[in-house]
Amino acid sequence: MKGSRLWRGGLLATLAGDSGWGLIEDGALLVEDGVLRWVGTGAEAPAADEVVELRGALVTPGLVDCHTHLVYGGSRAHEFEQRLHGASYADIARAGGGIKSTVAATRAAGEADLLASARKRAQALMAEGVTTLEVKSGYGLEAPTEARMLRVARQLAGLGVDVRTTYLAAHALPPEFADADDYIAAVCLWLPDLFDAGLVDAVDAFCENIAFSPAQVARVFDAARRLSLPVKLHAEQLSDQGGAQLAAGYRALSCDHLEYLSPAGIQAMVEAGTVAVLLPGAYYALRETQLPPIAALREAGVPIAIATDHNPGSSPTLSPLLMLNMACVLFRLTPEEALRGLTVNGARALGLRDRGQLVAGQRADFCVWDSAHPRELAACFGHNPLTERVFQGRRQGEA
Amino acid sequence: MKGSRLWRGGLLATLAGDSGWGLIEDGALLVEDGVLRWVGTGAEAPAADEVVELRGALVTPGLVDCHTHLVYGGSRAHEFEQRLHGASYADIARAGGGIKSTVAATRAAGEADLLASARKRAQALMAEGVTTLEVKSGYGLEAPTEARMLRVARQLAGLGVDVRTTYLAAHALPPEFADADDYIAAVCLWLPDLFDAGLVDAVDAFCENIAFSPAQVARVFDAARRLSLPVKLHAEQLSDQGGAQLAAGYRALSCDHLEYLSPAGIQAMVEAGTVAVLLPGAYYALRETQLPPIAALREAGVPIAIATDHNPGSSPTLSPLLMLNMACVLFRLTPEEALRGLTVNGARALGLRDRGQLVAGQRADFCVWDSAHPRELAACFGHNPLTERVFQGRRQGEA
Ligand SMILES: [Zn+2]
Ligand SMILES: [Zn+2]
Repeated sequence: MKGSRLWRGGLLATLAGDSGWGLIEDGALLVEDGVLRWVGTGAEAPAADEVVELRGALVTPGLVDCHTHLVYGGSRAHEFEQRLHGASYADIARAGGGIKSTVAATRAAGEADLLASARKRAQALMAEGVTTLEVKSGYGLEAPTEARMLRVARQLAGLGVDVRTTYLAAHALPPEFADADDYIAAVCLWLPDLFDAGLVDAVDAFCENIAFSPAQVARVFDAARRLSLPVKLHAEQLSDQGGAQLAAGYRALSCDHLEYLSPAGIQAMVEAGTVAVLLPGAYYALRETQLPPIAALREAGVPIAIATDHNPGSSPTLSPLLMLNMACVLFRLTPEEALRGLTVNGARALGLRDRGQLVAGQRADFCVWDSAHPRELAACFGHNPLTERVFQGRRQGEA
Repeated sequence: MKGSRLWRGGLLATLAGDSGWGLIEDGALLVEDGVLRWVGTGAEAPAADEVVELRGALVTPGLVDCHTHLVYGGSRAHEFEQRLHGASYADIARAGGGIKSTVAATRAAGEADLLASARKRAQALMAEGVTTLEVKSGYGLEAPTEARMLRVARQLAGLGVDVRTTYLAAHALPPEFADADDYIAAVCLWLPDLFDAGLVDAVDAFCENIAFSPAQVARVFDAARRLSLPVKLHAEQLSDQGGAQLAAGYRALSCDHLEYLSPAGIQAMVEAGTVAVLLPGAYYALRETQLPPIAALREAGVPIAIATDHNPGSSPTLSPLLMLNMACVLFRLTPEEALRGLTVNGARALGLRDRGQLVAGQRADFCVWDSAHPRELAACFGHNPLTERVFQGRRQGEA
């Protein structure tokens, strides 16, 4: 696209400021060079080289899915079925199921196969309005496969979506290591080469009694710090490990899951400016009953993001819109908090301040919806009223 | 389409017989005059005028959504938002919300507006593979608007989906009636004209302490019986009213919801051959905790159907695939039970025996999916791998 383009006649949910929908009726957006140059009402809109009529459609910022495990081999649908026929998690683990089966399938998959399946998943997310997507490694648990996952993630950007990669080798202990400390040493050792290859934007770990201890996570975070890489943490999902305090000490971008987050953890996150990423899909699919401390997070002023957590085991969903609804129904977020969670706060969980609101100076990443009000995006479930997705100012099919 | 067409090289989930997936690998279907003439393996397939290669894709029967309230005016998204900001159901009812607001909006809407919004919803269901769709009246609660809803429902058939209409005037007490018995008399009075106009395939009622008593429902069912119309019932959703026993006495096609169904109700349903229609979307959205008696239904051999229950208040979903997943996650159906619920048992809940399985003699309504196994349709949530929907043998765009 050359020159400037004015989108006018829409209902804009700008999400400007720290709260509220930021609605502008008869709203207009001026786009040039992939950036929002001006946002306001049609009556005050500047001239442009080209005009697009929105005819009353709703416009929101593009969606930011800040926590996914989108690249992997295999499927875990047979385990889902086995559990419903009465198999226990222990039965399935003994039979080589669970994350082990995904690690085996991912190691066995070639780069082209991994890319083909991940492309379909990314396209499904984009079809619901995702313009920025985070992808974690963590099903390789060995250097070559972690690198392959991250390369595939980078290639998804060719679809027309901004991709942020996160190194999550500290996800589980691979079968070839008997000692978790030895494996953590390897995780730290592999990182610099992957970073030098331009494959890593952030570093994550799984801090849990079934995964890695805070002391082990600290070693991974120290390795990240040596490269000035930001960190994130899968924290307090199944128990309170003090992971949030640890991560805050490294000024983590986000702590994710947080069902068992303590008041001390919340306080540490406030002080560090760490975002709370809530993952209602996993909460739903695992039939959890322990809710994250939403009211306390809200009261403390911790920014709340939500994400799909797409993964083949605990959250095989490709619908960010369903996560909006589940954040409201299951976690009692308001529709506006939920949409902020999938836009401006999702961006913040990735360290990005240039997107997530419809205000001048931000990237021209936005969605046009056949909806009368943004609350409808959250109130319905299992529906997709997206009519157009604009990425860096480009419409579908534009170079 | 003229002549015969062979679809070959797919994985067929035929659902033949009373249980099991009925899988046929390297499966083939012969279609002629809108009917499945032959189903088997590619090696044994007869010759045909035309061949379509399935290239390993999954084929299932077309989906049957046997319980929807798809035609209405207005939106209830603002009430969803108000509740999340702390308003109680009572607050909302006092402000004219709840079903009252939908009745007011539906009465105010013209036929063209009702059709336009219902078409979009039907298209969303069809985009996930629905080939048969039930639509209830019940937001008019006065003769002209009930008729308008049913006419709109009939017109949806023009989209290329089979539509079954259900008269549900006994849904709620309209504001112009002070006495429920008086209203029931009117409901019975309106029915014959609507039936004569060809607008009614079945009769339904809402039996509940907040709606109509078993004695009042019996009057409606008697009116149906005089026209030889089959009946269905919204039964035991919020309390055990003995609705299942009442409905079974009229050999009802189905009882729907059933969270509070008693053992006596199950026994009555078994004897009458009545289908249990479970509605996981409403259970989810209302945050219910009382589960329908799944194990007892299964043990008694009551056929279980599932449906979207699409409506603007308690189940604003347009995703039958999400219902498959929720039936498994929330109700612990197996993926195979869930898919039978959305196909063969959904058809049975409408009194239809000519669809819902891929066997010779059935209608050629089927779905082609980019999935390796039918269990994947239920294991994932918020995704739609449909690649082709065939209705009465016709592919998209064929006359
Ligand atoms: Zn995760
Ligand atoms: Zn209903």
